[in-house]
Amino acid sequence: MPGLQNVNVPPPQHVMVLGGQGWIGLVNRMGDEATIVNAARVSFGKMRSEMDERDVKLLKYLLDNQHTSPLEHMTFTFLVHCPLFVRSQWHRHRTWSYNEISRRYTEEDLEFYVPPEIHAQADNDRQASVEAPPTLDQAAARQAIDAANRAALQVYEQLLAQGVCREQARGVLPQNLMTTFWATVDLGNLLKFIALRSSPHAQWEIRQYSDAIKELLRPIVPHVAQLMNW
Amino acid sequence: MPGLQNVNVPPPQHVMVLGGQGWIGLVNRMGDEATIVNAARVSFGKMRSEMDERDVKLLKYLLDNQHTSPLEHMTFTFLVHCPLFVRSQWHRHRTWSYNEISRRYTEEDLEFYVPPEIHAQADNDRQASVEAPPTLDQAAARQAIDAANRAALQVYEQLLAQGVCREQARGVLPQNLMTTFWATVDLGNLLKFIALRSSPHAQWEIRQYSDAIKELLRPIVPHVAQLMNW
Amino acid sequence: MPGLQNVNVPPPQHVMVLGGQGWIGLVNRMGDEATIVNAARVSFGKMRSEMDERDVKLLKYLLDNQHTSPLEHMTFTFLVHCPLFVRSQWHRHRTWSYNEISRRYTEEDLEFYVPPEIHAQADNDRQASVEAPPTLDQAAARQAIDAANRAALQVYEQLLAQGVCREQARGVLPQNLMTTFWATVDLGNLLKFIALRSSPHAQWEIRQYSDAIKELLRPIVPHVAQLMNW
Amino acid sequence: MPGLQNVNVPPPQHVMVLGGQGWIGLVNRMGDEATIVNAARVSFGKMRSEMDERDVKLLKYLLDNQHTSPLEHMTFTFLVHCPLFVRSQWHRHRTWSYNEISRRYTEEDLEFYVPPEIHAQADNDRQASVEAPPTLDQAAARQAIDAANRAALQVYEQLLAQGVCREQARGVLPQNLMTTFWATVDLGNLLKFIALRSSPHAQWEIRQYSDAIKELLRPIVPHVAQLMNW
Repeated sequence: MPGLQNVNVPPPQHVMVLGGQGWIGLVNRMGDEATIVNAARVSFGKMRSEMDERDVKLLKYLLDNQHTSPLEHMTFTFLVHCPLFVRSQWHRHRTWSYNEISRRYTEEDLEFYVPPEIHAQADNDRQASVEAPPTLDQAAARQAIDAANRAALQVYEQLLAQGVCREQARGVLPQNLMTTFWATVDLGNLLKFIALRSSPHAQWEIRQYSDAIKELLRPIVPHVAQLMNW
Repeated sequence: MPGLQNVNVPPPQHVMVLGGQGWIGLVNRMGDEATIVNAARVSFGKMRSEMDERDVKLLKYLLDNQHTSPLEHMTFTFLVHCPLFVRSQWHRHRTWSYNEISRRYTEEDLEFYVPPEIHAQADNDRQASVEAPPTLDQAAARQAIDAANRAALQVYEQLLAQGVCREQARGVLPQNLMTTFWATVDLGNLLKFIALRSSPHAQWEIRQYSDAIKELLRPIVPHVAQLMNW
Repeated sequence: MPGLQNVNVPPPQHVMVLGGQGWIGLVNRMGDEATIVNAARVSFGKMRSEMDERDVKLLKYLLDNQHTSPLEHMTFTFLVHCPLFVRSQWHRHRTWSYNEISRRYTEEDLEFYVPPEIHAQADNDRQASVEAPPTLDQAAARQAIDAANRAALQVYEQLLAQGVCREQARGVLPQNLMTTFWATVDLGNLLKFIALRSSPHAQWEIRQYSDAIKELLRPIVPHVAQLMNW
Repeated sequence: MPGLQNVNVPPPQHVMVLGGQGWIGLVNRMGDEATIVNAARVSFGKMRSEMDERDVKLLKYLLDNQHTSPLEHMTFTFLVHCPLFVRSQWHRHRTWSYNEISRRYTEEDLEFYVPPEIHAQADNDRQASVEAPPTLDQAAARQAIDAANRAALQVYEQLLAQGVCREQARGVLPQNLMTTFWATVDLGNLLKFIALRSSPHAQWEIRQYSDAIKELLRPIVPHVAQLMNW
């Protein structure tokens, strides 16, 4: 169709992650730091049009005391390009709104993730990964993953050629399949996401996206960024 | 405090309701109709920068089939000035974000609602009201309500003067007390609100606010307005 | 109608509050502490039918690290009888499910709250109340509140007698009006409610309900109660 | 660990789906049909302990008019064993509570889905699948999927053997991987799930789970089942 552009292209304001394989872009935004402060101050029956020192103090008070309701009047829409397993971790956050590319609709533009940096299993924490020792052959591991991704794609295409429907054929595609989705959230719930997903307990891949969000937000909510030590 | 303006003043873009006693203003907005269509089209892996006829058809399809998730990427913040009983009906909608003036903080700017038009109880529906018959003395009823509001305010002020705390003294204030709150919602949930609150089953007072929202939105989402018969 | 019992009667398992004027009862429950532990342990792919020491340690880990998702598989339904202003604070919690008596349907069983103990405004905190000094005449204040409640009821009844519909007439009724509602919530969100509403920043009246919930839950989730220092 | 049983075993009350490869079990429940009716009737200030004809009429009225709030006081916990792609469709429903087996924790008990019945792509609907024509070789397609699943598992195990962490190695595992999760929801939101997921627009696999839920619920909410034409 003419005039349609591919969704798998990052919007102007974006951060690349996963060694250039993924990205997250900021598509839309509502409100600024003055919005937060005014929403908080409605309790007192007062509004102000510009931020001053007292407002920064109020912002600090709100963040320190988890009075997050005024943060909900500031919203953001992101466009996210990431592996399926990152998408699944992300969608556990139920206060976001999502719209995702569907593999029931289209079999175009299939890309697969290969970790730019292979990690090893941690000894002391069943859930964690650590920097791999030099004995782990990075190139060999990456090549094995790449080959597995490609082999799965080949089976997928053969299944489609045999007349199998997309929704069943895609079952063979690995969780390294890249996907793209719209994601809208308010600032209060975004801070909760960042607290969980920029933590050392989070998987390295989703942490990259969470850290990229900090980068995108820093110029927009400079005092919040400073107060949260971003 | 210098620079603070009273919150009980409507923002520039607003609609007066309840015979001039209440109002609702649009404070902030994210997205437009193209946002909705692009969020929907991500399923197909495609985006477009402007609306055309095919997009209007897609919008109609989304609304007809209750595919409301793409509507969630468009958000609105309203400032609402209404009686407490309208506020309580409003806050039952749990997908909105609210910040309200608190009568635990301030005893200033107390105003009370007097219905501009008195309705009678419906005979056939325990929940409904109907236009009052000419035998109902409108002026007398309005005067009785006004006097009751004033009497309660007087007791409230006496209690404060005696040293009673605001949070307990306010218990005598009637549900006709006017309040002001910030309210943020996405378009999908806003349409559900309007379906319920512009219905003839809704109380006349909240219906005025719901209808005012239609008026505020009509120039912003013209095709949605047309498709919903606003 | 025969067989119908008044809803304004506490269920068998309840706690009286506000000097006997209000109450909260536990109507229904799903799950127990083993439920929480098993839901958490699904991450590891394992289940267990009884609690042992390791399970208590796991419970402590979940609470300390705010891993609240396993707590969401335990749910409670309460029946609450409280003043309107407590109801409004309660309904700000948007993760609960509510059904409330409606003053648009019925004008029966109207009761009003009179604080059993009058507090004074705090000097140093605009939002807080403190124990009243002996100079505050408790009896006089309580009598003034009681008289205001009764006066409002009288106007309400006169308005109904004149043919004014219930939904408009109720506007003169004070926020001391008692109401009754069903409230369902999961344990994770209930703990957040208790953290906010049993805090010294909360109004004395709602704190009584929050503390009563602790009392109702203690025998049901004994280890959680101990870990939270209830 | 002694006393721990494998989570990948269906609970006593369950329905097998996907030709015996998947299942859904009912683990816990709160409330019954009388709960719904009583929660609805609180609006009138009345309660009743048993269902009679008037209650069935009220239930019908609630369902016909989408007054779903009284349905939220009845809750269910399911244990679900399904392919990852079904899980992802399920988790888009944000009003449920989930806890899922994590492939960051364990590499045990890996099973993979092979469709018992292969469907073909619909001609007229990009999203739909239809019964496959006799020309489609069912056995060959199923064998190709099975082989692809096994090949991926082999690569996964080689990666683990080389020291690659579980969370990165699992990227090669296909979306046919079976997973297990706890899922809690209230009846109101469960009916919305069923409306969407038992529809002919839903993928065949998730429709099987949605239909199984109807089967599990029928004896528990017989009047609701009848009114919904289950």
